Amino acid sequence: MAYIELNNDLPGIRGLMAYRPETEKALNALAETLLRDDDNTLTRGERELIGAYVSYLNDCFFCQNVHGALAGHYLDCNIDEIDAIKKDFYSADLSSKMKSLLAIAASVQKGGKNVTEGQITAARNTGATDKEIHDAVLIAAAFCMFNRYVDGLGTWAPPDRQFYVNRAPQRAEEGYQSSVYK
Amino acid sequence: MAYIELNNDLPGIRGLMAYRPETEKALNALAETLLRDDDNTLTRGERELIGAYVSYLNDCFFCQNVHGALAGHYLDCNIDEIDAIKKDFYSADLSSKMKSLLAIAASVQKGGKNVTEGQITAARNTGATDKEIHDAVLIAAAFCMFNRYVDGLGTWAPPDRQFYVNRAPQRAEEGYQSSVYK
Repeated sequence: MAYIELNNDLPGIRGLMAYRPETEKALNALAETLLRDDDNTLTRGERELIGAYVSYLNDCFFCQNVHGALAGHYLDCNIDEIDAIKKDFYSADLSSKMKSLLAIAASVQKGGKNVTEGQITAARNTGATDKEIHDAVLIAAAFCMFNRYVDGLGTWAPPDRQFYVNRAPQRAEEGYQSSVYK
Repeated sequence: MAYIELNNDLPGIRGLMAYRPETEKALNALAETLLRDDDNTLTRGERELIGAYVSYLNDCFFCQNVHGALAGHYLDCNIDEIDAIKKDFYSADLSSKMKSLLAIAASVQKGGKNVTEGQITAARNTGATDKEIHDAVLIAAAFCMFNRYVDGLGTWAPPDRQFYVNRAPQRAEEGYQSSVYK
């Protein structure tokens, strides 16, 4: 169970959001805009993949499974294929643009100053736009927050990874605004 | 200048927020709720101090100066006193509760799993409530996002630290909702 008394038995960030609905609103608004807004040239699957990858680097079981399952849902990949991408995205069947954005995300995970001008240039050379680079950085940074929030308060997570796969289609339909109430 | 073309010359996160107002809204709502909401037993100064300290640990010049100056404004400390707290909060004139929350924040900065049950117990023994512990963790996590966003996109920051001290009273009055437009 979590380090603090949440007065609910919801897993991961959902328990924290139900405990503190005042901050839940802003956190879900950020996730909804960054990960789902239709006015974006990165697909929902690509954006969820960046979040899942950063959560993997931060070793956050709950987030990497929630967002890995969502990425798999959108990109039509199974759990093993998502795992393979997390472990070695350079060898995966991804666009060179996505690989360059995942490389930037990996630097952001270590710390903002780890991003280099060379990585930005490399991303531009694959066709990444400034807005795509911006969003990749902010998604990676946001998951460095979400992961720390979830693990820093010692929340629990369903251990069966299939649980997350099974929930992904419903979550994809509902979005993040309503996550507290499900 | 920043790694991407922001089409403005605003420093730090303000330039990024003006570039992408869709995400600015959620980010400022989070900062406003976490750092300024009156329904909180941590003072505004204490909350800004957690943010400044985490920004110092992340070596983010812009954020540690903006929020260090705000903490100084609220806590009636000058820039040298805030610097001394960042460098060694255990030796500073702070409550044992604040010291226990800053210790938790330092663990969150390293990664969520670095927070220990012993740190939570120690915080409770100084009188910290569950909500205060929750907010300290989320503030620390949020600054791990803000710092990475600011430095990951290579934004510029005014080098004169007095600039931030001079701006703090106005920022304290206006809050975070309107920061893009100033």
